[in-house]
Amino acid sequence: MALSIRGYAAQSATSPVAPYQFERRDPRPDDVVIDILYCGVCHSDLHQARNEWHGSIYPLVPGHEIVGRVSAVGDKVSTFKVGEMVGVGCMVDSCQHCASCNAGLEPYCENGATWTYNDKDRHDGLPTFGGYSERIVVSDKFVVRISDKLDPKAAAPLLCAGITTWSPLRHWKIGKGSKVAVIGLGGLGHMGLKFAKAMGADVTLFTRTPGKEAEARRLGADHVVLSTDAQQMAASARQFDFILDTVPSPHDLNPYLATLKLNGVLCLVGLLEPIEPPVQAAMVILGRRSISGSAIGGIAETQEMLDFCAEHGIVSDIEVIDIKDINHAYERMLKSDVKYRFVIDIASLKTA
Amino acid sequence: MALSIRGYAAQSATSPVAPYQFERRDPRPDDVVIDILYCGVCHSDLHQARNEWHGSIYPLVPGHEIVGRVSAVGDKVSTFKVGEMVGVGCMVDSCQHCASCNAGLEPYCENGATWTYNDKDRHDGLPTFGGYSERIVVSDKFVVRISDKLDPKAAAPLLCAGITTWSPLRHWKIGKGSKVAVIGLGGLGHMGLKFAKAMGADVTLFTRTPGKEAEARRLGADHVVLSTDAQQMAASARQFDFILDTVPSPHDLNPYLATLKLNGVLCLVGLLEPIEPPVQAAMVILGRRSISGSAIGGIAETQEMLDFCAEHGIVSDIEVIDIKDINHAYERMLKSDVKYRFVIDIASLKTA
Ligand SMILES: [Zn+2]
Ligand SMILES: [Zn+2]
Ligand SMILES: [Zn+2]
Ligand SMILES: [Zn+2]
Repeated sequence: MALSIRGYAAQSATSPVAPYQFERRDPRPDDVVIDILYCGVCHSDLHQARNEWHGSIYPLVPGHEIVGRVSAVGDKVSTFKVGEMVGVGCMVDSCQHCASCNAGLEPYCENGATWTYNDKDRHDGLPTFGGYSERIVVSDKFVVRISDKLDPKAAAPLLCAGITTWSPLRHWKIGKGSKVAVIGLGGLGHMGLKFAKAMGADVTLFTRTPGKEAEARRLGADHVVLSTDAQQMAASARQFDFILDTVPSPHDLNPYLATLKLNGVLCLVGLLEPIEPPVQAAMVILGRRSISGSAIGGIAETQEMLDFCAEHGIVSDIEVIDIKDINHAYERMLKSDVKYRFVIDIASLKTA
Repeated sequence: MALSIRGYAAQSATSPVAPYQFERRDPRPDDVVIDILYCGVCHSDLHQARNEWHGSIYPLVPGHEIVGRVSAVGDKVSTFKVGEMVGVGCMVDSCQHCASCNAGLEPYCENGATWTYNDKDRHDGLPTFGGYSERIVVSDKFVVRISDKLDPKAAAPLLCAGITTWSPLRHWKIGKGSKVAVIGLGGLGHMGLKFAKAMGADVTLFTRTPGKEAEARRLGADHVVLSTDAQQMAASARQFDFILDTVPSPHDLNPYLATLKLNGVLCLVGLLEPIEPPVQAAMVILGRRSISGSAIGGIAETQEMLDFCAEHGIVSDIEVIDIKDINHAYERMLKSDVKYRFVIDIASLKTA
């Protein structure tokens, strides 16, 4: 007896996201059933709803920044109890036996992680549906705990925007004494500023838009560099240990590479396209600099991040919307007209 | 009373390298005077003689793989004695007080290292002249010791080709258990194979040319992958911790990036041009891979490498030439028709 679920789905690459009734599987022994309260709106929701990354499976129910309460658990679930506040991010499964999975780095699963939506369950082959819906059924290994200290709606974006910026900052050991720059002030960038600052780094925001100083400082930046100002860029030469590059569209990395110290790392987290214009090899060789990248983060480190957030009072800056306004939110998101993440109040599904 | 020196120089970007008489400075208190015995022939000699990197200063005396005997020392030199076998590489000076210099990484000197040729001395402003000459005068800080156990002519290429491959292998901590690949089998590549093997790694050569198996194995490769064979490349997916990329001309990095494990590093040591075709950002993000680079190596690590070579019996495979044949050697080098480094017998200057 599968569960019948109300949600919102795209029916094709050109149709808006609209009401859609579908079924979720009956909970398996390791499953947690979650009544969803809030779901953040990620750029990838829009890209996949519109098939911009190709291979989208329709109907497509987006959403991978999910917070809700446990409403039932399978027989073998001992780590979660009914009534607990929990989260689900970009993945709902992985092979659990490759080197990446064994290292707790499930997004890099060598056999492919199972994504929260627009994917197929690796056991029953049925499509996965995301968090723009009233309920989700997920293996306990991919559920994380959300502290009571966190506002659940503002915690939702931590499940993608949060962990995507947290994981590389931790991997590259950012802390007291580190000089970190963040490129871009969107959903990812604003979390990058908060985390880098909370980790003890000296934090700079690179932005193309003047007038963001006060806002950047409020979010954790110690300095703001206008990347369109050649003088400011020249003054930033060889300043940074680490640059978190959150820009989602192709952009010239060379001017940013020049601001890295010896052994500095520029880490891409927002780009899935070719790196153009081309990087000058001399920019990496004559400074032993690295261009790297990072994908989301593992489940264990997602929990670590959420616990850190609870301890340090960190959440996302959000704008709560009703689900019926999701298509309008996409349009605003495309114009970067959001500070800094839309979050859907899933209660609005009842009247949508 | 400056020293009058016989050498070979390019007089312009279009003239061949030909006999040239010039002066060296009188030794300063920290200088070592070296009677040159052998000088390796590096690709950069040719590029700079022909002004292919722009900004060449003529007359230009190339040569930065220099081995010879100390013939005199300045008043304050206590570390070298007359008669000792020594070497000089790509640099003859640096600021000695920046973060890079303090870390023993003089090629990355923030104030610019002084290159062995085609540069200006940072004290007297006079041009620097390289090793295609009978004698050189160099600050003791930039002179290294060559063990009697090493054949001096075969040791000459260690000063550039050797340290350029040694330094990144050491920096990225290659050793027993590492899986390393080397791209390209030239002056740099053949040293990369020897060093990676001697450090205990499992070593693969990537080559575009069939039939190099036996030769590659002789030099230290455990495996050879034909990079033009899609099947062999697919079978190499996610195999390597580290790739040493010695290719000097633009080439597609994406197929090689796919052969890196999670957290793997591709290190450029031969390329000074734009990275084209563009790297797919997904290739670094979906594997937390890095594209990095490395420039030569510091003086202390050059000495460390030379001591390691003496202990492990490692030198370059060379072809000794008379200096009058240098222009012909350049032409052969352009066709990769050398196994694996030309070395000039500087005694041939007397009859040239
Ligand atoms: Zn996302
Ligand atoms: Zn796996
Ligand atoms: Zn060289
Ligand atoms: Zn320096």
